[in-house]
Amino acid sequence: MSSVRVHNFSVSLDGFAAGEGQQLDAPFGHAGMRLMEWAFGTRTFRAMEIHGEPGGSVGVDEAFASAWNVDVGVEIMGRNKFGPYRGPWNDEEWKGWWGDDPVFHTPVVVLTHHSRPTLQMAGGTTFHFVDAEPSTALEQARELAGGRDVRIGGGADTIRQFLAADLIDRMHIVLVPILLGRGERLWEGFDGLEDSFDIEAVPSPSGVIHLTFTRRS
Amino acid sequence: MSSVRVHNFSVSLDGFAAGEGQQLDAPFGHAGMRLMEWAFGTRTFRAMEIHGEPGGSVGVDEAFASAWNVDVGVEIMGRNKFGPYRGPWNDEEWKGWWGDDPVFHTPVVVLTHHSRPTLQMAGGTTFHFVDAEPSTALEQARELAGGRDVRIGGGADTIRQFLAADLIDRMHIVLVPILLGRGERLWEGFDGLEDSFDIEAVPSPSGVIHLTFTRRS
Ligand SMILES: NC(=O)c1ccc[n+]([C@@H]2O[C@H](COP(=O)([O-])OP(=O)(O)OC[C@H]3O[C@@H](n4cnc5c(N)ncnc54)[C@H](OP(=O)(O)O)[C@@H]3O)[C@@H](O)[C@H]2O)c1
Ligand SMILES: NC(=O)c1ccc[n+]([C@@H]2O[C@H](COP(=O)([O-])OP(=O)(O)OC[C@H]3O[C@@H](n4cnc5c(N)ncnc54)[C@H](OP(=O)(O)O)[C@@H]3O)[C@@H](O)[C@H]2O)c1
Repeated sequence: MSSVRVHNFSVSLDGFAAGEGQQLDAPFGHAGMRLMEWAFGTRTFRAMEIHGEPGGSVGVDEAFASAWNVDVGVEIMGRNKFGPYRGPWNDEEWKGWWGDDPVFHTPVVVLTHHSRPTLQMAGGTTFHFVDAEPSTALEQARELAGGRDVRIGGGADTIRQFLAADLIDRMHIVLVPILLGRGERLWEGFDGLEDSFDIEAVPSPSGVIHLTFTRRS
Repeated sequence: MSSVRVHNFSVSLDGFAAGEGQQLDAPFGHAGMRLMEWAFGTRTFRAMEIHGEPGGSVGVDEAFASAWNVDVGVEIMGRNKFGPYRGPWNDEEWKGWWGDDPVFHTPVVVLTHHSRPTLQMAGGTTFHFVDAEPSTALEQARELAGGRDVRIGGGADTIRQFLAADLIDRMHIVLVPILLGRGERLWEGFDGLEDSFDIEAVPSPSGVIHLTFTRRS
């Protein structure tokens, strides 16, 4: 069976994966870009820029960053990662943060309680808007993945649901040495999660700490 | 001026410094001893056992653990670290978790809203029960410290107050790769704390990550 993976998911020392007050000019709310600065310098993230920047670091951060799309056939994300708008899709003009040719190049399942037709983008990305429990959404995603792995792309709310349903095989979490004070917490009520995962840690010269969670077999 | 320091303060990945339900047979509540296991193996912590155990590890964890009392002339702790009882000191028999000859060998200021006479123990430890704001308590502690440094011993509530009052010079926080789900959080509302401290991280073979916070001058 294909794996269910989390990559490059960044969390502050106080456990927040996004700040408060997400909006169009502040995708991470009051956190600004502090959670993602470690990533922007890497070759992988530069290549994901809308116009694709050459160069970028190739050290520890890049080693982790570059794994995100290897053997992945689909992403599942929450609708708050997809965009800053809430409620019904009044403005179907919104097609995500990633431009006309999004970085995914695979199907993407966007979890939402508000229905919306599938959105075909350039470069192989299609956004499927799905209202379903994690296990059902995962089944649908696997059908779209052509046998390849499933990435759970976030945000925190989405990852929490898949963790709580015990559906995640491996996670790469990036602990960023900042404190946000408020926002969206990744960890809520996971007493004893370490019994299900082997957890390893390695610090990067950039200051972040890469954590890997590997499900015990 | 002498420094104000935190040492060996252990926090779970989800930010808890103690579990829920602290009581006599569960000093860390439902967390059991999971937060402190990294420490019990070290030479420093073994020597602190009531009967003083010889041996113990002398690697990365010991390097950090052993710094806790060097040049320290006083500790400030909260009354919940001192013991599991709450409210007035009905039972003045309680003299802390540390036996007749406590590990401190210095004066200790116990913050509490409930007055109690100073308690003289063997080996140089005296417990002074003080009801005061952090800055006032720190002044009193400095008078007891004979020019040496002040350790803020925890728990979380006490450290939060000294951090919020901007009174801490350096902290050694141990990130333990466990999740507790509930309990006493260390981090509450410290948006941007990284602007005041240089933060370094090093993982230990035991699985914990040692973090140092050094106040920017
Ligand atoms: N730190 C990182 O590495 C990282 C990574 C990705 C994103 N982010 C940030 O995280 C924030 C978004 O995260 P978030 O935790 O707020 O939310 P999220 O997980 O992106 O989305 C949550 C929303 O998705 C919908 N949804 C989730 N599960 C569903 C289900 N089972 N069925 C139907 N609908 C479901 C609901 O919206 P409706 O009810 O409105 O449909 C829910 O409110 C953004 O600020 C983003 O920039 C951070
Ligand atoms: N993780 C670690 O490394 C570590 C280290 C030490 C302790 N611990 C654990 O942490 C827990 C205790 O921590 P905690 O956060 O619950 O509490 P704490 O900081 O030990 O004590 C808080 C209590 O001290 C009194 N107090 C605090 N500040 C005061 C002030 N300015 N003036 C007067 N009184 C004041 C108040 O009690 P009253 O109003 O009742 O007097 C307050 O409820 C225990 O489970 C302990 O085992 C963990």
